[in-house]
Amino acid sequence: MTYGTVTKDEIAIFRSITDPERVSTGESVIELHSKDESFHKRCKPEVVIFPKSSEEISKILKVANERGIPVTPWGAGTSLEGNPLPCMGGIVMDMQEMNRILEEREGDFQVVVEPGVVYKDLNKKFSKKGLFFPPDPGASATIGGMVANNASGIQTLKYGATKDYVMRLEVVLPTGEIINVGSNAVKSSSGYDLCRLFTGSEGTLGVITQITLRLAPLPLHFTAVLVNFNSVEDATQSIYQIMCTGIVPAALEFLDTNVIEAINLYKDTNLEEKPTLFMEFHGSNEAGLKEELSLIEEISISNKCSLYEAGIGRQERDRLWEARYDTFESMKNANKGMEIIIIDTAVPLSKYPKMVDFARNEAISKGIKGYIFGHAGSGNLHMGLIKDPKDAEQAERGMEANDAIVRCAIDLGGTATGEHGVGIGKRKFMAHEHGPSLEVMKRIKTLLDPNGIMNPGKVFF
Amino acid sequence: MTYGTVTKDEIAIFRSITDPERVSTGESVIELHSKDESFHKRCKPEVVIFPKSSEEISKILKVANERGIPVTPWGAGTSLEGNPLPCMGGIVMDMQEMNRILEEREGDFQVVVEPGVVYKDLNKKFSKKGLFFPPDPGASATIGGMVANNASGIQTLKYGATKDYVMRLEVVLPTGEIINVGSNAVKSSSGYDLCRLFTGSEGTLGVITQITLRLAPLPLHFTAVLVNFNSVEDATQSIYQIMCTGIVPAALEFLDTNVIEAINLYKDTNLEEKPTLFMEFHGSNEAGLKEELSLIEEISISNKCSLYEAGIGRQERDRLWEARYDTFESMKNANKGMEIIIIDTAVPLSKYPKMVDFARNEAISKGIKGYIFGHAGSGNLHMGLIKDPKDAEQAERGMEANDAIVRCAIDLGGTATGEHGVGIGKRKFMAHEHGPSLEVMKRIKTLLDPNGIMNPGKVFF
Repeated sequence: MTYGTVTKDEIAIFRSITDPERVSTGESVIELHSKDESFHKRCKPEVVIFPKSSEEISKILKVANERGIPVTPWGAGTSLEGNPLPCMGGIVMDMQEMNRILEEREGDFQVVVEPGVVYKDLNKKFSKKGLFFPPDPGASATIGGMVANNASGIQTLKYGATKDYVMRLEVVLPTGEIINVGSNAVKSSSGYDLCRLFTGSEGTLGVITQITLRLAPLPLHFTAVLVNFNSVEDATQSIYQIMCTGIVPAALEFLDTNVIEAINLYKDTNLEEKPTLFMEFHGSNEAGLKEELSLIEEISISNKCSLYEAGIGRQERDRLWEARYDTFESMKNANKGMEIIIIDTAVPLSKYPKMVDFARNEAISKGIKGYIFGHAGSGNLHMGLIKDPKDAEQAERGMEANDAIVRCAIDLGGTATGEHGVGIGKRKFMAHEHGPSLEVMKRIKTLLDPNGIMNPGKVFF
Repeated sequence: MTYGTVTKDEIAIFRSITDPERVSTGESVIELHSKDESFHKRCKPEVVIFPKSSEEISKILKVANERGIPVTPWGAGTSLEGNPLPCMGGIVMDMQEMNRILEEREGDFQVVVEPGVVYKDLNKKFSKKGLFFPPDPGASATIGGMVANNASGIQTLKYGATKDYVMRLEVVLPTGEIINVGSNAVKSSSGYDLCRLFTGSEGTLGVITQITLRLAPLPLHFTAVLVNFNSVEDATQSIYQIMCTGIVPAALEFLDTNVIEAINLYKDTNLEEKPTLFMEFHGSNEAGLKEELSLIEEISISNKCSLYEAGIGRQERDRLWEARYDTFESMKNANKGMEIIIIDTAVPLSKYPKMVDFARNEAISKGIKGYIFGHAGSGNLHMGLIKDPKDAEQAERGMEANDAIVRCAIDLGGTATGEHGVGIGKRKFMAHEHGPSLEVMKRIKTLLDPNGIMNPGKVFF
């Protein structure tokens, strides 16, 4: 597909649609919108537009659609798969000025927001009302970016991913049509689930301009648990056995020795450098939690844990999770000047020990430094593979290890991406993962975006 | 759209594809497939086919698609909105002979089934392994029917609807293409969520031929609670306050005085004839449950309950839920010779008291006997409106009340159907509920089923 370029003519049109200062071709703005947190190569947009309403977006999309100009929506640029990089040029639609909380419906455990609202700000605001939006991607993402990528995180195990909280969306289609999908009722069997179709579609079907989220009540009681094991196998076996009890931890994170070393270095912590589980449990009362923990302790001991620390207080618990959130930064700190390929596969739970084992051996056999961590209770494996941008041969080995690990996950019945989305890096695995249904996805893409202007070069080739 | 009819020629082709005895035009078989549990009028198919594999279905669909013959998939015929009625004639594809459990993956809490497996049989089998498929539609539905309708039920409050358990589907498209959608990994952000598109599409996009379900661990401890109130308002206020605590009951059902009367008559029970809540709580330990119940009791008392009965034993609890499951039969028993319009709206939680109030007044003002019950904790209101098939004027008033109540639900931000699907009866509300996005649903329907052979006359006009 060939795309139109943005000429002075279009710039003038876009400036007449929005305020002139919200259409930028300035070098620093272009630069800021050419890179996310991934290792994918920089792609510069021709223009960055900061819309303030769905009506403005509708008008801009009509022009772009007629002239075949690519449009790539942008949240906070924190994604890890190149999802918002304008790889065919054109317009980056930066949603950060659409950042209003439009309606607080705490009586329904719901909130209506514009896409530019920052996740952490939303939760800060609602914590006073005893409510929160649980999927926690770690990064300082916007709600719009989280919906587009179906982001999730540490507490997805108990609370679900972003998709489980999106009740209703306003979407501007590439033709400029503005539609509303979904329902404010928590239950509905009314027609096709378009809300789910747009959630996780990575901006390839339209621009999301309004989001109704379900919120969850903040847990009344919580407690963190830290367990060390002498081997990765003992740790992964424990994960599996814990999940079989029927107790659902709020978080169940696995961190290998390399990750703990990097964290100790970066955070100046003093964690034992062994395969480790960080867990958190939420409940409506302490008596219930206490009983749950006794079962967790029993399982940990039966798998020969070298340390079991439960009943961790608020402050220590916050430090623990801060350390976990800073895993990516810790890896960067320990590998200055290097690039990090972040793996994000997910497999059925019983395959998790095998997945970890394969990933570890693959890195070792390719001579690549690997850091294994991730949302183990959900079968989601993250791994940082250290890639040297100045050593083409090493970088190639790194990519080979990446590809082998992703293919292994798919062959184990899993997915190429548990939460980071397809973006640029996972496109090559889509046919292997989806088979003939990939063709159906493409037909839907062509149906809704016949000129292919929405975030081209992502999800599909 | 005009449809082809099934001639001797096609019958011969279908018989050559399947065994001859699995293609029936016998009067009793035709009769059995012309009516579900709804009040919608009988529609006879021209032929009923009982396929045994997706390959057979693929071949049949190719013929039907070329010749414009309608194809309506059939589960157990227990639906309440006319969803599987062949209202344009043609083929009924009865899935009941595809009833094998294909793979038991209890290590992943998953099972792979054919669509004809009966829900209750599945749960009986897996209860021995400590697992269950929670959405409980009450009726003896097939898994295929539940997926097609996105069925849910009493325990959806805690455990979610069918859609929350469908991980992967094999679907035969009208063109005969066989595709697989979804993933065996519990987390995935890989491409468009086609699994959700087919779930709840009521057989209008293809025939579902294989289903991978997630299963939940059976709760280790459970307890039922029965509460009576002096007024509907006190009951609905309690529902709202209970949901605000953050405690998630497994079930929270509201039954009005008329329903309790009908149940007492049919089941020979001795329930107090007052607005009533049936609740159930699940937990991993008794200590936690006990603390939860003390909060529920406090709320019930503060709303002047006339009876609060907790800690109900196994036997009594089973009787309670059996009574609830037999609500529909109880209404039929109390109104012999009458038809029952079943309302299935859902609204945001804070609107539930208003919804109940409106529904009650609407029935009273139209002089229609109404029975209000439903999955109150999820904002799902059911109501049986008694319609006299021999009194056209009364029947019309009944339909007027139905329409007013459904429109009220939509205007309160809710939906025309919480769990029964659109079928025939809710089509007229789709434009009001979905606005311009209904057009997008229709485009997707036309994309995947260009000749409109799949379950025509449902969901859309």
